[in-house]
Amino acid sequence: MRIAVDALGGDNAPGEIVSGALAAARRLPRDEILLVGDEVSVRPLVPELPQNVRLKEARSAVGMSEDPAAALRARPDSSIAVAAETVRRGEAEAFFSAGSTGASVAAALLGIGRLKGCRRPAIATMLPFDKPALLLDAGATVACRPQDLLNFAILGGVFAKRYLRLDGEPRVGLVNVGEEPGKGDDLAKEAHALLEASEGVRFVGNVEGRDVGSGVADVLVTDGFTGNVVLKTAEGVAREILGMVRDAMTKNVVNKLAAAVLRPSLVAVRDRVDPENYGGSFLLGVRGPVVIGHGNSRARGVENAIVGISRAGSGLVEESEAALAAGRRSVEEAS
Amino acid sequence: MRIAVDALGGDNAPGEIVSGALAAARRLPRDEILLVGDEVSVRPLVPELPQNVRLKEARSAVGMSEDPAAALRARPDSSIAVAAETVRRGEAEAFFSAGSTGASVAAALLGIGRLKGCRRPAIATMLPFDKPALLLDAGATVACRPQDLLNFAILGGVFAKRYLRLDGEPRVGLVNVGEEPGKGDDLAKEAHALLEASEGVRFVGNVEGRDVGSGVADVLVTDGFTGNVVLKTAEGVAREILGMVRDAMTKNVVNKLAAAVLRPSLVAVRDRVDPENYGGSFLLGVRGPVVIGHGNSRARGVENAIVGISRAGSGLVEESEAALAAGRRSVEEAS
Repeated sequence: MRIAVDALGGDNAPGEIVSGALAAARRLPRDEILLVGDEVSVRPLVPELPQNVRLKEARSAVGMSEDPAAALRARPDSSIAVAAETVRRGEAEAFFSAGSTGASVAAALLGIGRLKGCRRPAIATMLPFDKPALLLDAGATVACRPQDLLNFAILGGVFAKRYLRLDGEPRVGLVNVGEEPGKGDDLAKEAHALLEASEGVRFVGNVEGRDVGSGVADVLVTDGFTGNVVLKTAEGVAREILGMVRDAMTKNVVNKLAAAVLRPSLVAVRDRVDPENYGGSFLLGVRGPVVIGHGNSRARGVENAIVGISRAGSGLVEESEAALAAGRRSVEEAS
Repeated sequence: MRIAVDALGGDNAPGEIVSGALAAARRLPRDEILLVGDEVSVRPLVPELPQNVRLKEARSAVGMSEDPAAALRARPDSSIAVAAETVRRGEAEAFFSAGSTGASVAAALLGIGRLKGCRRPAIATMLPFDKPALLLDAGATVACRPQDLLNFAILGGVFAKRYLRLDGEPRVGLVNVGEEPGKGDDLAKEAHALLEASEGVRFVGNVEGRDVGSGVADVLVTDGFTGNVVLKTAEGVAREILGMVRDAMTKNVVNKLAAAVLRPSLVAVRDRVDPENYGGSFLLGVRGPVVIGHGNSRARGVENAIVGISRAGSGLVEESEAALAAGRRSVEEAS
């Protein structure tokens, strides 16, 4: 698989991005990495090009606070626009960027385009708990229709099966305010009916907030408003609780001594819920998955994100479009 | 203040409910508790009535899985219907029930009625973190209009100032997917404009999920769908992380020994985020606040909930209606 990497996007570009991309290239000898950036800043970081890494020239970057669509139109030679262009032209199957989420989404929609049968894309994010689940949409489409949520379920199912290497069909849950089918607002009620009618989705019903980390589903579907708030709440609360635990352990000398013994085990807990394990989110519903790295990603996150998309991405577009078409047919037949 | 307590609602009724109510009565010598339940099951639990506790007869209970509205219509002598009736008649200013949330909301709407100027009620819940914040709506009104969110901000502000004993005006934030004013779906955008226009609300802007526990606002406003999912996600993730920490501490003998030293400090962390500290949520927007206890509440939660409403509740209805009217005027003048 060929993967384009926006070397100029993100708070720690280009150093950490290039370093992470090179580490990924070492782990993926059969894949090829296209480092997209300007010769002057990127070349010195890779004096000797590994055989599966190429440079691709781009003259500028899109800043974190720029209006994405305007910046992309004004600068088609920006690294993120060039990265998207390589996917559109079939030079790469996916691209990674740690630039602003808005710029990644805009570059994907303007530069690559949507999958057939998919009105709106979704950001899919792994919830970093013991029993991982793929949450989507985490913020690409704040105003959704019921059909969008069915599409997200199909796209998320295809992706999760590959990414999590599941044997059976992924279990899909609908984020809702109660477990019973009649619960929720109109969107949730109508999406529930569609998900139940669709044959391509292994629907396990509504999932309440308290169960998003409990492993009851492999894929959690919701609109981009709710999903964004849920994801950030989960990350924020995890950080908050771990901070309280850390404070408790260092509040006096005796505690500090005992904490020293436990440190390795507790660092393991912190690492298990570290978002950098996944290194980013995945924009699904476009003709080439886009990996949206964290703006503050370091090399390890970049590496994990690229390795992740390599595992999940090859042939994803074709399989997703076939699944969307099958899903549409099964719902039409049911109604 | 007089507070009615549904002695028959909840998984642990009547034993734990009565025991918690009696403990609250001891802490609130100037308040009066009305224990609502049937003589046969409640009387033996209070052989000697304290001077500020009275019994109020009710013949039946509404079960956790019954359809609330139907059950209330069929059995006006049920404990929750009688508790609501005491508030409607002015015999009590508030009532507590650990029965089903649906039954409490229905009893409040059918039996007590809404505040003037308040289309829909909201469930207000304290987020149990180091820096507490009142989240509303946690699930009473899943489909909200922008005006509802302004009303929730006003109701939550009046309540939080009393409940949290704040000196200044409570800072109100709008739960949203980004900090900038233009973020979110139509509801969030229009609510943002209303909150900014209202003079009665100290609006601090949008609050992202990652900041719900960080103390940036005293009151967090959102629709009942998002709020319910946020609250349950926060509780679920806190439980999950604490469980992972506990597992790490008991995974071998050395860890167990070190953990024994830290146990008191870690129990303190767990206790700080225990929802039973607040003992329940508060239904606001009705003519007499209703305390919705957790279904599995034990005596400590019941006691804390009753003490909480005593601190916040006296005169709440009048102050809330005045604030709603003032909020409406300020928005009309601004537009």
